[in-house]
Amino acid sequence: MNYLKKLVLYFFCLSFPAALTAQVHPSLMLTKANVSAVRKGIQEYPLLKKSYKKIQSDADKALMTEMSVPLPKDGGGGASHEQHKKNYINILNCGVAYQMTGDKKYAAYVGNLLLKYAADYEKWPLHPKRKEGHQGGKIFWQSLNDFVWQVYTIQGYDLAFDAIPAKDRKTIEDHLFIPMLKFFTVDCKETFDKIHNHGTWDIAAVGMTGYVLNKPEYVQMAIKGSNKDGKTGYLAQIDQLFSPDGYYTEGPYYQRYALLPFVIFAKAINNYQPELKIFEYRKQLLSKAIATCLQLTYTDGAFFPFNDAIKDKTYESAELVYGVDIAYADIQAQPELLDVAKKQNEVIVSDAGLKVAADLAAGKAKPFAYLPQLINDGAKGDEGGLGILRYGSNEDQQCLLLKAASQGMGHGHFDRLNILYYDNGVEVFPDYGAARFINIEAKKGGDYLPENKTWAKQTVAHNTLVVDETSNFKANADAAQLKHPDILYFKNDNTIQVVSARETNAFPGVEMTRTTALIKVKELDKPLLVDVFQAISDKKHQYDLPFWYKGHIVDSSFNPTAESTNLKPLGTKYGYEHIWLNAVKTAGAEGGYVTVLNNKRFYTTHFVADSALQVKLLSLGANDPDLNLLESKAFMLSQPNTAKQTFFSITEAHGKVNSINETTTGASSAVSELKLISASATQVTVSFKVKNKVYHYQIDYNNKSQFVKLN
Amino acid sequence: MNYLKKLVLYFFCLSFPAALTAQVHPSLMLTKANVSAVRKGIQEYPLLKKSYKKIQSDADKALMTEMSVPLPKDGGGGASHEQHKKNYINILNCGVAYQMTGDKKYAAYVGNLLLKYAADYEKWPLHPKRKEGHQGGKIFWQSLNDFVWQVYTIQGYDLAFDAIPAKDRKTIEDHLFIPMLKFFTVDCKETFDKIHNHGTWDIAAVGMTGYVLNKPEYVQMAIKGSNKDGKTGYLAQIDQLFSPDGYYTEGPYYQRYALLPFVIFAKAINNYQPELKIFEYRKQLLSKAIATCLQLTYTDGAFFPFNDAIKDKTYESAELVYGVDIAYADIQAQPELLDVAKKQNEVIVSDAGLKVAADLAAGKAKPFAYLPQLINDGAKGDEGGLGILRYGSNEDQQCLLLKAASQGMGHGHFDRLNILYYDNGVEVFPDYGAARFINIEAKKGGDYLPENKTWAKQTVAHNTLVVDETSNFKANADAAQLKHPDILYFKNDNTIQVVSARETNAFPGVEMTRTTALIKVKELDKPLLVDVFQAISDKKHQYDLPFWYKGHIVDSSFNPTAESTNLKPLGTKYGYEHIWLNAVKTAGAEGGYVTVLNNKRFYTTHFVADSALQVKLLSLGANDPDLNLLESKAFMLSQPNTAKQTFFSITEAHGKVNSINETTTGASSAVSELKLISASATQVTVSFKVKNKVYHYQIDYNNKSQFVKLN
Repeated sequence: MNYLKKLVLYFFCLSFPAALTAQVHPSLMLTKANVSAVRKGIQEYPLLKKSYKKIQSDADKALMTEMSVPLPKDGGGGASHEQHKKNYINILNCGVAYQMTGDKKYAAYVGNLLLKYAADYEKWPLHPKRKEGHQGGKIFWQSLNDFVWQVYTIQGYDLAFDAIPAKDRKTIEDHLFIPMLKFFTVDCKETFDKIHNHGTWDIAAVGMTGYVLNKPEYVQMAIKGSNKDGKTGYLAQIDQLFSPDGYYTEGPYYQRYALLPFVIFAKAINNYQPELKIFEYRKQLLSKAIATCLQLTYTDGAFFPFNDAIKDKTYESAELVYGVDIAYADIQAQPELLDVAKKQNEVIVSDAGLKVAADLAAGKAKPFAYLPQLINDGAKGDEGGLGILRYGSNEDQQCLLLKAASQGMGHGHFDRLNILYYDNGVEVFPDYGAARFINIEAKKGGDYLPENKTWAKQTVAHNTLVVDETSNFKANADAAQLKHPDILYFKNDNTIQVVSARETNAFPGVEMTRTTALIKVKELDKPLLVDVFQAISDKKHQYDLPFWYKGHIVDSSFNPTAESTNLKPLGTKYGYEHIWLNAVKTAGAEGGYVTVLNNKRFYTTHFVADSALQVKLLSLGANDPDLNLLESKAFMLSQPNTAKQTFFSITEAHGKVNSINETTTGASSAVSELKLISASATQVTVSFKVKNKVYHYQIDYNNKSQFVKLN
Repeated sequence: MNYLKKLVLYFFCLSFPAALTAQVHPSLMLTKANVSAVRKGIQEYPLLKKSYKKIQSDADKALMTEMSVPLPKDGGGGASHEQHKKNYINILNCGVAYQMTGDKKYAAYVGNLLLKYAADYEKWPLHPKRKEGHQGGKIFWQSLNDFVWQVYTIQGYDLAFDAIPAKDRKTIEDHLFIPMLKFFTVDCKETFDKIHNHGTWDIAAVGMTGYVLNKPEYVQMAIKGSNKDGKTGYLAQIDQLFSPDGYYTEGPYYQRYALLPFVIFAKAINNYQPELKIFEYRKQLLSKAIATCLQLTYTDGAFFPFNDAIKDKTYESAELVYGVDIAYADIQAQPELLDVAKKQNEVIVSDAGLKVAADLAAGKAKPFAYLPQLINDGAKGDEGGLGILRYGSNEDQQCLLLKAASQGMGHGHFDRLNILYYDNGVEVFPDYGAARFINIEAKKGGDYLPENKTWAKQTVAHNTLVVDETSNFKANADAAQLKHPDILYFKNDNTIQVVSARETNAFPGVEMTRTTALIKVKELDKPLLVDVFQAISDKKHQYDLPFWYKGHIVDSSFNPTAESTNLKPLGTKYGYEHIWLNAVKTAGAEGGYVTVLNNKRFYTTHFVADSALQVKLLSLGANDPDLNLLESKAFMLSQPNTAKQTFFSITEAHGKVNSINETTTGASSAVSELKLISASATQVTVSFKVKNKVYHYQIDYNNKSQFVKLN
């Protein structure tokens, strides 16, 4: 246990259950001492001004609309669901508007709306609908939404506190917040003590409410768990949910989401109990987690969509606005964060937002730097990780990610050694993300669709090896959670960026090692994606390596002769039942290539293996009666029956199509003559030609000092 | 014949075969008198400066690269094809660079490269490859490319003329340009005299070469046809290829292309023989044609892609840069054109470009206004036309186009009464355009693919009625060319924009009338697309009305129950063989709806008909062995056996999805209860409900004064 961690625990022991600091309101994101400075800031600093303008306009709209606190009845996206979401946003907006203008009408709105809730809340039963597999809420169909509701609402209440009559406050606290605290800690005890992002939201809601209502016992439970022994609660969550590199085990989409209650509650703790130095906890873990979350995006700001992820989510989302502002203002004022804030085009109207907006206005921003890096997973950093390779400017960057992290709990996909490849601002080899139309009522209430299990999580939905038409761990999440891949090597120099990882448990008796690299050769402007995927077993297996691609196949070494009149599924289970088989071709021992045109650039994937391959052309959509699956296409390298198989492929990004001038250049790949010279359990040697130059590339799996050689 | 037309012909009689004006070089886009002003302009006016900078940089690159005049051998996109294209661009760039800098190295490049051509040209046979169905060239696989080559090259030659030694000029003229003139007028006589855009390029190349080489007989042939009788040639082309509204019969994609030689040659005529007042010819027809070409785009600048069209083409293309600059500088200085020039972000480095750049710099631009309008087709304006309905700002515009124009010659599609529908910056009901990967060698040399005939041109590939699974005129282009639809009505007021057209020949014995409208009701912010398609016959037929859509179906009045394990084609010919049938559902007499999510907005199409319908869900790709077809999806309303059928549909654009904030609003359509109250050959009455208000909509086909009523 490091010194600071000890220090924090010491302070917690010391300070509980003594009374908290004197109650001053507001004291969460915006503090009383700073109100006049922020009021001035919304006149002076463009980004703060713009951000506040939106809030005040929304607050004014809220005031002109009749209040509605409907009986909870609808699932995600439905009317009552959306109304209750809107209500907490209005509460927060009106709270901010009250502090900025001093106009009591905003505070009155907060008070009156909360009185309406207080009149009904205790009467409401558990929500009649239930999000599949999730604990129910009272206001929403899952308790998680109730926690989120309160994290925002308590901020609005704190902001409006001073202008709400004491009698009304008592009604609100006695009949809404106190019953809610009981619901969150007693009825939802299981979630409250769970090391999981739903637990974090529960904890943050309870802890912040505890501070604002001056109920130290709830704060203590939030920080140290319901038994107050530190085995669960906020600190335990920071210890267990993040790796030392600040990676959150569920993946970027949930890291973003999980971060918010961590960050907001940290800020509350820091305001009420600065002596706890919460931002220093675990070597500034929260700061690292925010930085890592930003690094887990492509240059368009979209999070790498592995595991269950909604694909359009970017760091412009509210969670990262909080994260970036607080990281900058309260942890470390890195000027690169200002660049992100500028792209977010929003700050929180708060102490932190004031500082960000002021420093942006003062021209202190520096461009955000995406860095090639290895991000380790696991509470101790020893449970695999993510290799992120990047080449080129933020305007036209090649990015290759190898996913060799642990399973990531219930939202994890069975995609050990999966790669995601981006170039030219777009996905080249994408990840499907989650099968879900979020908040679209007609699509299973906006929840995860059945195809999330039957398709999106299955191994074949990813750019990684499938053995015998099954999935990793036969798609058993509990089994998968127990094992993780291992990172063998990571390197980043001027010529070669490479990451290598091994997985020995996902398919019994099969050892899989993938070594994937961006290699810059002097003959070409852009690096090559050089990928060596080796599978070794005592027994013979079917090995399928799909490349899900975006764009349209415009050339190949074989004549596709796609099925003309009768499409059938590729298989019957583990996701194969969702794939239409469009073509099967045999590529000889000399391998072959496929060229795809995507966003006006060509991508040629050359491939060869140590035995002759089949190439299958695939499209998604079989066994999808409700049209839940999105259009997706793949070419799959397949070996039907062998014990040991090494797939060697090179993907070159080349040429361009200018459809306005109708010119095409560089439509042919400059790479040729891929050869798999030798492949053993310890070493793989391959060669390839770029223009007229022959390159030899060797991987020594056991040589940590010179893992790869290129000459 | 109008007065100006007479005047022009009079001048032509007078002035030929007398010598042309004294030879001064340059005298085409850039004239000697203006050189010093343009030299000053490239320092002063940002857009001219930027445009010239690119030219000089490209010219400098050309000078540093070894000249190459390869033996012509490759088809479109191939190496020799691309090199010869690059050469004419280099010639023009170096010509401009010479005039701007006075540095003779640029002129020497032009002279030397042309000497290389002069050394080989006469030896070259006809190009060994042939673009299917097209006359061969010598430098390129089709003569068209040779004409284009010369239209650019002669400009470069004219610019460099004064600095090329007379001896070299003689060699170039005797062994390249004169033989080329013979090739263009004798070997290619058929094209030269054809009323068709290939003919225009031939004529422009010959006429401009005639001016620069002081060969009046070629100029006269160009203007009045090879027999010099005015039955063919430039003026005959202006008379016959454009409607009085300035519409070019082949459609926008080819209008853009066809315009360039018209405009460039007009500028040449105007410089050499200003007394001909060519820009005044046929009531300023060329000016109208340029304006119409701009109006034939959606707000992203992309041309409406009906008929054979490459879909990403926008008014930023070089042809429209010439068109807009010359229209502004030489015909009429409309400030709206400057807005387009600004978006083009380029001007020609020329007399016209100077004026545009100067006026832009002086802040004279006004926003380009897209106007709802009827554009008549046919040399006399009586062969059908296009109805373009538009609602909303250029930032978020609904646009609905009804295609009821004539066939448009060989590039025409069999798509009578087709609609294209746009909203929110994207296609909602798209047109497939051409089946072609332009300039991609691996895709049939970049030429039209076989699927252009078997799919893209067929009726079922469009958003219009198909009778008995055939195409209009059984896909016979010659038969189709003889007949045109008729516009019944067009109206544009604050509430209703509507266009109605009738086609009685495309399917024997079936009279089809489509009345399509954007109707703004006060209950909604955006207009509704209200579409009434009536087919009347004595005999029973199968009537299929497909809606090709972009996006993903997220809701419908029926359970899709898509085919799970076995996809089969919808039919066997007329394009049906390329369609996979994903689902067939029966909608009762009460009709139904389909909701599509596209670019974060919902589109619900409600439908009802006078008999129960089938709804078929379709995707493209059957019988496509070479993977030539792009992903496309449709829902098709189908009535298998009836004589008279009226399809009534309303498409509402509604709601939005914010995937960054994960909020969804307005996911349900506000429209309901569509009823077809009565439908006869003279009148159709329907009703529908928007929120709680019931609307009655009546169409009286014979009442020109009150064709539609809404109450």
